[in-house]
Amino acid sequence: MTRQPTLGILGGGQLARMTALAAARLGIDVRIFQESDEGPSELLRHVTTSEWSDAGAIEAFVGHCDVVTLDNEWVDLDAIDENTLSSDKLRPGRKSLSLVRNKIRQKQHAAEQGIPIGAFRACNTPAELQAAAEAFGFPLMVKRPTHSYDGYGNRRVTDIEQLELALTELGGGGPVIVEQWVGFQRELAVMVARRPGGETATYPVVETVQANSRCVLVEAPAPVDESIRERAAELARKVVAAYHCVGVVGVEFFLLDDGEILFNELAPRPHNSGHYTIEACKTSQFENHVRATMDLPLGDTSLYQPHAVSMNILGSDSVDPVSRLPLALSVPGVSVHLYAKRAVRSGRKLGHLTVTGTDREHVMERAQEATGAFE
Amino acid sequence: MTRQPTLGILGGGQLARMTALAAARLGIDVRIFQESDEGPSELLRHVTTSEWSDAGAIEAFVGHCDVVTLDNEWVDLDAIDENTLSSDKLRPGRKSLSLVRNKIRQKQHAAEQGIPIGAFRACNTPAELQAAAEAFGFPLMVKRPTHSYDGYGNRRVTDIEQLELALTELGGGGPVIVEQWVGFQRELAVMVARRPGGETATYPVVETVQANSRCVLVEAPAPVDESIRERAAELARKVVAAYHCVGVVGVEFFLLDDGEILFNELAPRPHNSGHYTIEACKTSQFENHVRATMDLPLGDTSLYQPHAVSMNILGSDSVDPVSRLPLALSVPGVSVHLYAKRAVRSGRKLGHLTVTGTDREHVMERAQEATGAFE
Repeated sequence: MTRQPTLGILGGGQLARMTALAAARLGIDVRIFQESDEGPSELLRHVTTSEWSDAGAIEAFVGHCDVVTLDNEWVDLDAIDENTLSSDKLRPGRKSLSLVRNKIRQKQHAAEQGIPIGAFRACNTPAELQAAAEAFGFPLMVKRPTHSYDGYGNRRVTDIEQLELALTELGGGGPVIVEQWVGFQRELAVMVARRPGGETATYPVVETVQANSRCVLVEAPAPVDESIRERAAELARKVVAAYHCVGVVGVEFFLLDDGEILFNELAPRPHNSGHYTIEACKTSQFENHVRATMDLPLGDTSLYQPHAVSMNILGSDSVDPVSRLPLALSVPGVSVHLYAKRAVRSGRKLGHLTVTGTDREHVMERAQEATGAFE
Repeated sequence: MTRQPTLGILGGGQLARMTALAAARLGIDVRIFQESDEGPSELLRHVTTSEWSDAGAIEAFVGHCDVVTLDNEWVDLDAIDENTLSSDKLRPGRKSLSLVRNKIRQKQHAAEQGIPIGAFRACNTPAELQAAAEAFGFPLMVKRPTHSYDGYGNRRVTDIEQLELALTELGGGGPVIVEQWVGFQRELAVMVARRPGGETATYPVVETVQANSRCVLVEAPAPVDESIRERAAELARKVVAAYHCVGVVGVEFFLLDDGEILFNELAPRPHNSGHYTIEACKTSQFENHVRATMDLPLGDTSLYQPHAVSMNILGSDSVDPVSRLPLALSVPGVSVHLYAKRAVRSGRKLGHLTVTGTDREHVMERAQEATGAFE
């Protein structure tokens, strides 16, 4: 009789689901702790459903696991008891999470560590907003310090009235981050896997294309000069070390017209910009997240084929994605992923699809054709 | 709210496990019916544990599923009630299973359909054995008509005493199959996916290398002339149509020295000789089994890279495979799969690993090095 190694995940969204599928291939058992009994991790047997504040349930959960990681950094860690947060089973650990979870702290840390980053200020009052607007000019980007992702909690503002409204609506009594508008040429992202001892594996640098602050397309490798990709990869490794990350990390950058690369933000977990790795790379971001958090040797991150594109499948009020599966699968060479979310809200990420190949235009066309099946 | 399509699987071994992981990617729910609460499908939530003869439980299970398939053809269908067996949800269906499950019937059907096959006889008595031995000469292969796979229920015999012992021990009161020894050059296998309407997708022809009647290595594509691969693929498509298969089918052949290809046997399900497709092909055999049984468009079966090798990880009394995972994963570019079997018996398939690449020797070396970690 052998004992399966066990990885716990706090939160049961699509990232936990895909991590669990990768862990299963390695014979690693996954346990999920989540608040709702439904959702993407519903297919798994070992799911604990309780409140984050249920210290007894959390303690029992952690006790069953060799290592515990997070579906995403917005899990309500503030409600979780001290023992769990301080446990060396938690990867990434408390120190890393405290640097990452509040985006004001995250950006301050980058500046302190000499990581190139755009100008920003934390603003609490109309006077601070006014000063930031005078220093940076309009337009400005305003962000909630926590739970801002995928267009949630982010806003572009073009005048002082919009800026003040953003403080009220996004700050909710606390500060917002006001960022100087970065006239970037492209957005780049790099997934890096990092083991507890510091060993890293870096994925190809990708371009992410956003619409309404939501990622719609990821292209690997990013269609930029090799020298830019090398600098981005180097900077990404510097970032994950500076934040003491363990596991897979998504690091996002702005590429400026003059070739400069600015750090935007990081997500200490598998990331939408790395979903393409499931089919396109020898080891997926999810498997390397499992390997890194479980302190196993990291896998080869290289591409099987020269080009890969992934696109998100976003919810629409009028479309049941399941009903469109036959149409999408009829596009040759497309790998479709649906996350089995029960509620379909407009704009919600319900899945993604990936195409790889040797001809960039062909790959792009196939991806767009298949995505069209869900619209 | 959307409803997930649901695929039921009778039996919960590693083939069900890997099929479930592939189905999950497509957002398809999987339900398992099995006799034991433990084993490779233990990670899934929707598992019904009962006896095959529990007609009420089977009926309820089938009622929850859109389509029902089998982990393997040795599931105790004889114990399953008539309604289930006759259900058009069952894929492959009763007609196909009745042609496949008894290897005497399977071989007779091949002969009737003009599929080239080696000489064989069903023998029930010592006199029939004697006649077969005189007709074919020694050595002979003797097989139990059912539940013979992976060296179980198969035996090579070299004289009449061994042959008579085989009838007693393998036949168990019923007949055995006596096969003329085929002096083959290589063993080839082809995975074919077939939808209910007859649409098929054919995987690359592979060579399977056996030791002690157990597959130890699969190489894709088989290192034989393209013309041989074309003939094998064509013959495989003829076989799956002749047996009215639905889903993925493993078709095994002997390649003789003179280039002739003889049908050996088929398995109406994902097969060990197709495990390499998980990493090596654009659509894995498991995903195409899901697509074919659920009557969805079939996926691209082509290789990402020119060469792929998979090897089995077999149990040993002295080795806990989990403890060897770090060593195996330290070999670059190797994808390791462990099936989370609780009991480790010597020679039992506990997992497999796959390596792909552009250089055949390099791929082979990596696979052997990583397999060595489990020995």
